[in-house]
Amino acid sequence: MSHAPAGPPGLGDAMFSTPEMSHLFSGRTFVERMLAFEAALARAEARAGVIPQGAADAIASSCRVERFDLTALFHESTAAATPAVPLVRMLTMLVEGEAKRYVHWGATSQDATDTAMMLQIRDGLDLLAGGLLVAGDASAALAEEHRATMMAGRTFLQHAVPVSFGLKAARWLGMISRAAIRLRAVRGQSVALQFGGAAGTLASLGERGEDVAAFLAAELDLPHPGLPWHAERDRLGEIAGAVGVTAGSMAKIASDLVLLSQTEVGELSASAGGRSSAMPNKRNPVQAAQALAAARLATTAAAALLGAMPHEHERAAGALQAEWQAVPDLFRYAAGAVRWTGAALEHLTVHPDRMRANLGTAGGVAMAEALTMALAETLGRAEAYQLVDEVAAQATRAGISLRDAAAADDRVRSVLAGGRLDRVFDPREYRGSSDVFIDHVLNEYRQVRGSLGGAAR
Amino acid sequence: MSHAPAGPPGLGDAMFSTPEMSHLFSGRTFVERMLAFEAALARAEARAGVIPQGAADAIASSCRVERFDLTALFHESTAAATPAVPLVRMLTMLVEGEAKRYVHWGATSQDATDTAMMLQIRDGLDLLAGGLLVAGDASAALAEEHRATMMAGRTFLQHAVPVSFGLKAARWLGMISRAAIRLRAVRGQSVALQFGGAAGTLASLGERGEDVAAFLAAELDLPHPGLPWHAERDRLGEIAGAVGVTAGSMAKIASDLVLLSQTEVGELSASAGGRSSAMPNKRNPVQAAQALAAARLATTAAAALLGAMPHEHERAAGALQAEWQAVPDLFRYAAGAVRWTGAALEHLTVHPDRMRANLGTAGGVAMAEALTMALAETLGRAEAYQLVDEVAAQATRAGISLRDAAAADDRVRSVLAGGRLDRVFDPREYRGSSDVFIDHVLNEYRQVRGSLGGAAR
Amino acid sequence: MSHAPAGPPGLGDAMFSTPEMSHLFSGRTFVERMLAFEAALARAEARAGVIPQGAADAIASSCRVERFDLTALFHESTAAATPAVPLVRMLTMLVEGEAKRYVHWGATSQDATDTAMMLQIRDGLDLLAGGLLVAGDASAALAEEHRATMMAGRTFLQHAVPVSFGLKAARWLGMISRAAIRLRAVRGQSVALQFGGAAGTLASLGERGEDVAAFLAAELDLPHPGLPWHAERDRLGEIAGAVGVTAGSMAKIASDLVLLSQTEVGELSASAGGRSSAMPNKRNPVQAAQALAAARLATTAAAALLGAMPHEHERAAGALQAEWQAVPDLFRYAAGAVRWTGAALEHLTVHPDRMRANLGTAGGVAMAEALTMALAETLGRAEAYQLVDEVAAQATRAGISLRDAAAADDRVRSVLAGGRLDRVFDPREYRGSSDVFIDHVLNEYRQVRGSLGGAAR
Amino acid sequence: MSHAPAGPPGLGDAMFSTPEMSHLFSGRTFVERMLAFEAALARAEARAGVIPQGAADAIASSCRVERFDLTALFHESTAAATPAVPLVRMLTMLVEGEAKRYVHWGATSQDATDTAMMLQIRDGLDLLAGGLLVAGDASAALAEEHRATMMAGRTFLQHAVPVSFGLKAARWLGMISRAAIRLRAVRGQSVALQFGGAAGTLASLGERGEDVAAFLAAELDLPHPGLPWHAERDRLGEIAGAVGVTAGSMAKIASDLVLLSQTEVGELSASAGGRSSAMPNKRNPVQAAQALAAARLATTAAAALLGAMPHEHERAAGALQAEWQAVPDLFRYAAGAVRWTGAALEHLTVHPDRMRANLGTAGGVAMAEALTMALAETLGRAEAYQLVDEVAAQATRAGISLRDAAAADDRVRSVLAGGRLDRVFDPREYRGSSDVFIDHVLNEYRQVRGSLGGAAR
Repeated sequence: MSHAPAGPPGLGDAMFSTPEMSHLFSGRTFVERMLAFEAALARAEARAGVIPQGAADAIASSCRVERFDLTALFHESTAAATPAVPLVRMLTMLVEGEAKRYVHWGATSQDATDTAMMLQIRDGLDLLAGGLLVAGDASAALAEEHRATMMAGRTFLQHAVPVSFGLKAARWLGMISRAAIRLRAVRGQSVALQFGGAAGTLASLGERGEDVAAFLAAELDLPHPGLPWHAERDRLGEIAGAVGVTAGSMAKIASDLVLLSQTEVGELSASAGGRSSAMPNKRNPVQAAQALAAARLATTAAAALLGAMPHEHERAAGALQAEWQAVPDLFRYAAGAVRWTGAALEHLTVHPDRMRANLGTAGGVAMAEALTMALAETLGRAEAYQLVDEVAAQATRAGISLRDAAAADDRVRSVLAGGRLDRVFDPREYRGSSDVFIDHVLNEYRQVRGSLGGAAR
Repeated sequence: MSHAPAGPPGLGDAMFSTPEMSHLFSGRTFVERMLAFEAALARAEARAGVIPQGAADAIASSCRVERFDLTALFHESTAAATPAVPLVRMLTMLVEGEAKRYVHWGATSQDATDTAMMLQIRDGLDLLAGGLLVAGDASAALAEEHRATMMAGRTFLQHAVPVSFGLKAARWLGMISRAAIRLRAVRGQSVALQFGGAAGTLASLGERGEDVAAFLAAELDLPHPGLPWHAERDRLGEIAGAVGVTAGSMAKIASDLVLLSQTEVGELSASAGGRSSAMPNKRNPVQAAQALAAARLATTAAAALLGAMPHEHERAAGALQAEWQAVPDLFRYAAGAVRWTGAALEHLTVHPDRMRANLGTAGGVAMAEALTMALAETLGRAEAYQLVDEVAAQATRAGISLRDAAAADDRVRSVLAGGRLDRVFDPREYRGSSDVFIDHVLNEYRQVRGSLGGAAR
Repeated sequence: MSHAPAGPPGLGDAMFSTPEMSHLFSGRTFVERMLAFEAALARAEARAGVIPQGAADAIASSCRVERFDLTALFHESTAAATPAVPLVRMLTMLVEGEAKRYVHWGATSQDATDTAMMLQIRDGLDLLAGGLLVAGDASAALAEEHRATMMAGRTFLQHAVPVSFGLKAARWLGMISRAAIRLRAVRGQSVALQFGGAAGTLASLGERGEDVAAFLAAELDLPHPGLPWHAERDRLGEIAGAVGVTAGSMAKIASDLVLLSQTEVGELSASAGGRSSAMPNKRNPVQAAQALAAARLATTAAAALLGAMPHEHERAAGALQAEWQAVPDLFRYAAGAVRWTGAALEHLTVHPDRMRANLGTAGGVAMAEALTMALAETLGRAEAYQLVDEVAAQATRAGISLRDAAAADDRVRSVLAGGRLDRVFDPREYRGSSDVFIDHVLNEYRQVRGSLGGAAR
Repeated sequence: MSHAPAGPPGLGDAMFSTPEMSHLFSGRTFVERMLAFEAALARAEARAGVIPQGAADAIASSCRVERFDLTALFHESTAAATPAVPLVRMLTMLVEGEAKRYVHWGATSQDATDTAMMLQIRDGLDLLAGGLLVAGDASAALAEEHRATMMAGRTFLQHAVPVSFGLKAARWLGMISRAAIRLRAVRGQSVALQFGGAAGTLASLGERGEDVAAFLAAELDLPHPGLPWHAERDRLGEIAGAVGVTAGSMAKIASDLVLLSQTEVGELSASAGGRSSAMPNKRNPVQAAQALAAARLATTAAAALLGAMPHEHERAAGALQAEWQAVPDLFRYAAGAVRWTGAALEHLTVHPDRMRANLGTAGGVAMAEALTMALAETLGRAEAYQLVDEVAAQATRAGISLRDAAAADDRVRSVLAGGRLDRVFDPREYRGSSDVFIDHVLNEYRQVRGSLGGAAR
């Protein structure tokens, strides 16, 4: 069979990732980070007196990704089930003279691939956390601005009691803050140098293994993990969990945006584009849809990594290699979920009038709880619940609103006379602790934002 | 942030796919198939008298992927959450004169993307089924050649009773045949044209919708499904199941290869390469490892597609778009699993001497059942089981083989005198129905192979 | 730590399963089916002359689940990682005299567990297929009755073009028919006896293995698979796919029901209960919600089974045992999804008035395509699209309906004079091929229903 | 259809869980914790002056699970898609007099179910962390005792370089410590009270919502989360990640145990039972197999929870309810994985002689790296690698050990004269930094153990 080279799939990266994250988790950057490992290894070994400084300099100066034929390198990766073997071979060919002897000295291929992946992950976690600020800033502004913009709270997608749109945005924001905190925590706990030699003993470096490891960690600005973790993948599992939860959190927000943008609901317009090919004048929540697609792909990758945790003995046959696809997938799609959720929130148009109108839908059924609680203060909860049930049934029978039916009911009137009934039916009076909650979240986000290096709002 | 374009991830395609499948499920081919849809649509509509024949010719002649800027197309896909919208726009610009009016006439974007994906899937199923023949031919040859090559059967990874390696290969072959049958069946049942217009009614074509649909199906050589299935994704779910099972079947074989190639087991050499960067003289089962990695990625994609089945209303927000990554992933990684399992089987070296030697390991414990059954004919199963237990314990205490301990036991000798004990301890005598099983599988495979167009073995 | 026995989780079975399926996939029924295997094995071996008829009778008469202490049996299952070992031990104790010797003769524990599971699966597939008829009958009635009940078709959860509710129900019905066909197919292809002895050779039965296998298959009314499949789990993978797709199909329907029942949409009432504890007068789509929960759990179990396919050698350590939970989970939750979807459809109230009213929402934007196509016959698609875009923008600016804006536009009027514009804006005129589609599906379902033994509608 | 009640599945709990965890996550305990919520709510509201103290006392005294008909309760849960509605109804019936009015005052059903689940999770995390100590203590003892017990390190399941069994056990222990730390961290970060009323505003409590929430958190000894999180499930996602990683970590250990117990490897005996029904004298690693099965089920449940994160609006239709099965599954199976891994480690028999013998297998190929590194000090890495490759090939050709071939090679002898070659081939000399690594892990575990309240080792 003869055909042109496959070329980039392209569509997935364009639709469900960000250019930065696709670049970071490209095959090219993976090679670049492996070369960074090899260069740092040589320098660390020179510093520890294991190899000559001149050799280290020569090796480091050859560790430039532009000098490598990536197509050949990836192709040859299949001969050893790792890109590190052809990379070390090619690097050795590039280095001239005696220095050639000291390439990859004392290391094993997995030291290069694992550490390179951790360098990518470290930067990927930062990109994700930083990317969250777009959604965070937008949510914070919405929470503040719409503190008292009342809308129907919905359970089972049915009107329940009123909430303010600001509280809803605050709940999104709380989730965003926690995602950022979680990504930051996992960066501190689980990102680590991998350096153990052929089976994790550093035996190839004799007495000097620990020194080299410490210098290498310093060179790469990676935490030293205490001992190699080549076949213990709980660090990756923890990272997958944190990134997967980030993606899932975006999906929650995006799902709300899609639902609130429905034609009949119309409380939000969550599209800055989204034209149909067949229907003019239709605006689809495309950013949110892409966030949902990306989040789904990201949580799938996270699950794959949890399932791939058991690595056999000192290096797995299969579970290890699968990570080289699943980890990039995880980060790229999570970045896509963060990106599109942020974009959707940034360009959101809020329609308070529709929120108010919808609250009145179904005859003000959303205020049934408020009525129940107001009656219950006098009648007790069980009796109040029963009474409101009857009033609501009467409203349905008569085709009138709950408020009007309540006003017409003697028992209600005997408890809630005059203006009290009006107050009961004003959603803005029924916000409970919403402001306290919103303030809590805004404070928390300010701290998170500060710690991520963003300017204070 | 400024950086070079991301470029292809590359590594995953190189390691866990095949060039053919990566090409088939590339973004470029997706566009090519959408253009095939647009061209066939124009021709079908001309045939049905919906649009002028000249317009159809003009449209069809512009449907050439080389004329499209794919980078721009993918980038613009994010504005409508579908590549079909920019594709139709670009195609309309390419078509000259009046014909421009008739581009994409009466269709919706999802008609183009779903049908294009089905065209890819149809070819992908054929590639997978054809690709299985490499593993199939190799397994069939092994099943025939090693009918009576005895080895330890292993349960819980412990020696159980003897099996022949030919029977093991036959079991692999049975699975391969069933996978091919399943892929063929799903190609017949689930691959289908999608054509319904904006919401699945073909209303935009008035009276002529059914004619156009029938002609279009004929043009593309795709089954007509009776009605559009845009939001009913059970066809995709069934395809995901069949392809996922194919990948899982490969993983079973690859897992056996890895286990039988272990240094201590040494019954197979399953590597045509697999050098370590740190250790000369080490040969890793790299093909099998890559098959395991690819199969893991493929079953993950299959699970994602099952989970994405519920599409909202007439077109989903998120679940649909995720398919554009998950379906290519499914096919590419399944192809990788098939490829590497085939490569491993093709280059397999079998070591019957090690199989024989291992069978003797642990003092012939693998023959314990044979001894039990032989004794049970006289003593009954319970008593025989008890007796063999005692003999085995005695063998362990004395550090002798089970056979020697049995020969030294009066109770055993009273039942199995003279040559009978030797026969009991000859694994080749303990093959049961293996030949019948092997013949069954070889016959079945011959039929499968014939139906797939392969030459008879 | 001292505490009372855990007792049944109970809640999951009550909410996400059916009593029949929970009963079928209970531990008790699993034991019952293993006993059916042991009894049939004894009878088959007597028929083949392997064991005395009297022994077979004695064994078979002891194979009654009431005589077994299930708590003890399950507890002892952990000593051998299989319930078959204590079961055989207990059964042997129950059988008196010489017959005791012939219990489980020539079989291995996995023969009992796999075959028992297949007996459960066979019945489980029938239960699922039969259970689908409730949803099928309801959908068929809706498809017929609401052929011309127009509603908004929705893509991205936004109004697109009109569809009839009958067509939507027909699409559900098509999926239900295909699910039933698929379950029936997999019952024929993948359900099979497992009988191979300790490592799949039937060596323990010498020359008579094939006879016993054939008689055993006949006794149990299970297909004979040609060869044992103990470590080749593609049959289970295929079953998982078919059942998972069934659950996913239910989720599609349930998702539509939830969305169409939203307070603002109000086109369906999908609840026969669903009271809130805090809010009287709220009716939640609880059946559909439970279907969605159950379907999610079922597809998870299906994915687990696909991932567990690679079994080591002749019997797996771990992947096999996990099936004993994942297979019951798969069937129970799929049954729950089928049950609750059926219940929701059966008690559905359709509100054609709301469908009509919603179609008018947003100024009749759902008719934009109809207008475009009508104009395009004269102006060509591109120009028509552009014109409708402008008219729609004008409608939005002026706060009038699309119809009124169209009527006021000179260019539109010059093409669609007089009554033609009214016809264009009548959704019932814009049903395209819907009736053909509906008829196709109703015919297909009648056949499916007939083949499942249901009375013809 | 008529049949007996389903009864407990039983087998799954017996085989893949622990009695304590099954009890904790039983339906009964779920109800018990919901009652604890209702009792605490009443007390908190009395303290805040919302309801009379007498009512609180009356309610609290009725919150005893023994007084509830669980079968009826679970059955009625399907009418509202939540067990909280029938529970509140039944509780209200139990409470006498005026107090009846104040049952569940101001709360919503999800406040009860979420908080009850969090109470279970809190205890479940403690059970898991405590349960890890069995595996931890055993691993710590093995790490100390077998510091210098040399065995083959294995990559791709092939001999690589030597490692000590103590280092392998230390790596397990490091993973166990990190799992315990992670469980403890997530207990602090993600376990929290849920209390928000019908839509998360606490509006039903007017001004006193915050006070009641604070008192309620104190009553239940649960952290106050700042704001309700009813529809933001990132806490559950994080918990799922941490528990899933714990299970995956157990699977790594169990997988190593199974592999090292293989008949041909024989370096460990990982069974305290594990008899075959057909083959006496076979000892299967049943505890490890059960750990692998349980871990697979647990990571599946974790993935389901990640996938179920997007909850619609203020309460989900489906995704919420699925948690009531997935969360118990997650904890029960994770507990099973921890239990059986611990049991396997506790009863492990180590065979240092087999480890030594296996190291010699394949002619000492495991020492190839040591030879390479020793030669490389003089010859450089590339030349040394090449030389060892030739020596190894010569060893294979001549059928002699690598050591003998090396001793016979002039080039080798010229570099490694006399006793140096012997030292190179002594695995104990090739332990590198293993002792440093082991010490690091033992120290870390001592701290973890102390913080979990275990006695210092």
